[in-house]
Amino acid sequence: MSAWLDAVKWDAQGLVPAIAQDAVSGEILMVAWMNREALEETARTGRGVYFSRSRNTLWRKGEESGHVQKVSEIRADCDNDVILLKIEQLGDIACHTGRRSCFFHKLTIDDQGRAEWVATEPVLKNPEEIYRK
Amino acid sequence: MSAWLDAVKWDAQGLVPAIAQDAVSGEILMVAWMNREALEETARTGRGVYFSRSRNTLWRKGEESGHVQKVSEIRADCDNDVILLKIEQLGDIACHTGRRSCFFHKLTIDDQGRAEWVATEPVLKNPEEIYRK
Repeated sequence: MSAWLDAVKWDAQGLVPAIAQDAVSGEILMVAWMNREALEETARTGRGVYFSRSRNTLWRKGEESGHVQKVSEIRADCDNDVILLKIEQLGDIACHTGRRSCFFHKLTIDDQGRAEWVATEPVLKNPEEIYRK
Repeated sequence: MSAWLDAVKWDAQGLVPAIAQDAVSGEILMVAWMNREALEETARTGRGVYFSRSRNTLWRKGEESGHVQKVSEIRADCDNDVILLKIEQLGDIACHTGRRSCFFHKLTIDDQGRAEWVATEPVLKNPEEIYRK
């Protein structure tokens, strides 16, 4: 029953990176980590579940913020060591900074070849309002 | 001059995952790893360069296959520990299996809740023809 979970190439910590991509627009919203339990629960419930390395526990995306991810498709790459979730992001905010996508640091290079990361993308909601204590 | 490289949160092995996404369609083509040198060269040359963990060396994508990636944008996520490249994939094949995208394993779940990975996406070119010895 769990051969599909055995087929995933978990790393030494029992994790794989998982990309959450907007199922309609194709925008990449975030990358997080999954352990076996997180991937199994995601497939069973259709809701994005990850493993928080900082808190060392399952992280049901949206459990505090309400920004739940509805998963319509689960893919793995050729090596079975990266997971791709096609999702609908409830609340339109995937990033803990209050932005739609976590990928808001854009590398800009000036005339002299100097590069720097510039924050783009609007903050849609104050993080303090997202994570009520 | 390299503050932008210092800002990246390299892991214990000095690597970060990098996603290559079609700049036009939004399709996710592959995920590989970058070290500092790979990211610097990618930014400087506008060509996708990775670090091959299996060969323990820089991997200039397309060096054997000709399937070079032209990079139009480089992004990092909120934690600066994942890189996103927006690219044009020359030859239309990013995967070593001869497919356009590496993410061709699709999880399918039957009526009884049994899940399995099913290979989708056509093979556009025989890998033996791509990698001429």
